[in-house]
Amino acid sequence: MRKKLSFKERFELVSRNLQEIISKEELKKLLNSKKQPVVYWGTAPTGKPHIGYMLPALKIADLLKAGFHVKILLADLHAALDNTPWDVLEYRYNYYSKAIPEMIKAIGVDVKELEFIKGSDFQLKPEYTRDILNLASLVSVHDANKSASEVIKIVKNPKLSGLIYPLMQVIDEEYLKVDAQLGGIDQRKIMVLARENLSKLNYLPRIELMNPLIPGLIGEKMSASNDKSKIDLLDNREIVKNKLNKAECISGNPKNGLMTFLKYVIMTIKKDKNEKFIIKRAKVYGGDLEYENYKEIEKDFINKKLHPQDLKNAVADEISNLLDKIDKGELKKLAEKAY
Amino acid sequence: MRKKLSFKERFELVSRNLQEIISKEELKKLLNSKKQPVVYWGTAPTGKPHIGYMLPALKIADLLKAGFHVKILLADLHAALDNTPWDVLEYRYNYYSKAIPEMIKAIGVDVKELEFIKGSDFQLKPEYTRDILNLASLVSVHDANKSASEVIKIVKNPKLSGLIYPLMQVIDEEYLKVDAQLGGIDQRKIMVLARENLSKLNYLPRIELMNPLIPGLIGEKMSASNDKSKIDLLDNREIVKNKLNKAECISGNPKNGLMTFLKYVIMTIKKDKNEKFIIKRAKVYGGDLEYENYKEIEKDFINKKLHPQDLKNAVADEISNLLDKIDKGELKKLAEKAY
Repeated sequence: MRKKLSFKERFELVSRNLQEIISKEELKKLLNSKKQPVVYWGTAPTGKPHIGYMLPALKIADLLKAGFHVKILLADLHAALDNTPWDVLEYRYNYYSKAIPEMIKAIGVDVKELEFIKGSDFQLKPEYTRDILNLASLVSVHDANKSASEVIKIVKNPKLSGLIYPLMQVIDEEYLKVDAQLGGIDQRKIMVLARENLSKLNYLPRIELMNPLIPGLIGEKMSASNDKSKIDLLDNREIVKNKLNKAECISGNPKNGLMTFLKYVIMTIKKDKNEKFIIKRAKVYGGDLEYENYKEIEKDFINKKLHPQDLKNAVADEISNLLDKIDKGELKKLAEKAY
Repeated sequence: MRKKLSFKERFELVSRNLQEIISKEELKKLLNSKKQPVVYWGTAPTGKPHIGYMLPALKIADLLKAGFHVKILLADLHAALDNTPWDVLEYRYNYYSKAIPEMIKAIGVDVKELEFIKGSDFQLKPEYTRDILNLASLVSVHDANKSASEVIKIVKNPKLSGLIYPLMQVIDEEYLKVDAQLGGIDQRKIMVLARENLSKLNYLPRIELMNPLIPGLIGEKMSASNDKSKIDLLDNREIVKNKLNKAECISGNPKNGLMTFLKYVIMTIKKDKNEKFIIKRAKVYGGDLEYENYKEIEKDFINKKLHPQDLKNAVADEISNLLDKIDKGELKKLAEKAY
């Protein structure tokens, strides 16, 4: 059913929209030598997953199309190490293990092609622990701290768990038997730590694929712990509209979370579906606008041919259309217990 | 064969020569409620065990006499966490697992009454690791660092393993199913960490028994990594004599490693055997001296009635007599591989 892609098409699919790849040469070699390479993306069930997760979901879709076997790590122990209370951990895990597949389905990927793995199912094995201790004897407190700094919640009097967190992520690459890891650019220091240390344990270093980060709607990194800056999967059309109305979006300046989401998520989906992005506008204001790619939108926005409010309305509709595809019934019940 | 001891005699035996007990009240309660309480003493196979280890060995003898079941933890993983290279770890473990029983036998304790446990046999179990991660989410980096500071080797750019070390010692108390832990006073901060945190994991806090530290012969803490400051188990009569001749021992000042060893080890053994400590002296210098307890020796030394050289000769003889009881044949072979 699916047409066979050329090497160039596979490489283009895997690398598009990424902010960094370590290294491109290794990725090319992998695509040339393996028909079905293995990659993993991990997420720790901490806060509530938001629509920013659509970005890795799209990349996962790319990887599947490029012939990868994709493993999704639901990292329950990592969540505990990152200040999620142990007593709510199971509920958070239950929510994520339903929410993540729903998001991936929403963008049109068949989740049957994905493998979901629970962290604690392999991260407590004796051989894994031995490797963690071995790695801990190689990595300085300073370097562990540095590598975790952009990933772990910042708290007063930080706990030791935050320093064990990156070490487990390093060892995960080996125990998940992957060729590559996908993560946000905020994971970069941990990924570099992995590149530097796996070979010292006689394991192969892995290829690291890094997504850009989507800023929050009110200027920050889109955080799972700031309600106003993010759109929740369970938000209805009304709420989505309200949140977008409050979003930072100054006429002429494309540097904001809304535009970034439009660029990496909405316009990527549109492009893959050969659909246009339509902005409905009354005839008196010039009538509807149609765009085939993000660059055109950005150009019009900078030149103030596109008004922030019209853009907000259109993006709100697109997001709500996406969220409509999520089966929210069971998710709502799980959320009540988890949050 | 062994006479039944009264509560008072048991308490006296357990607490003698200790620098601190947390807490005496709990120890009394334990002795009153349990006929055979369980205690552990742990040692990490890092450097080479030296005669300073005779002090915990004597305390272990006391505990056995007081009716305790004693577990000796040979903490191989702790050694790795404290900068012992993983590739020599097994050899060091082999040396310790022969040397420690030999030392305990040398002071007249039946090692059949002791239980020897290898750390990695239980410290890699999934439930143990889960507890370590749980504890790591409770203990701050600052507190882990502080608690390890007197135990871990001081190195430039310290490794994360040094912070995991104390956490494992905390959890060991639970997994070894003991009522009490015996250790040097240098372990105090880790023991306090255990007291403060075990209950947060719904485990009982344990009683902590702390030996004083015996200073090295040249003024430092008797360290397994400084050859001159310590007497090795394999040292012959000649070497022991030479090392003691170089020991710090200024006429009139009893504050040195030699006197401390005499007090806590030699005179404790003498007392238990109802033997006198005899210092051989030519008639021209006043003839032989006989002592029944340490206080008398110290008094004469302070009053300069006992010359440092005569004391050194006598202590050297006592140490060599003790070391003569150690079966050195196999130990020497094991040492060649381990060091």
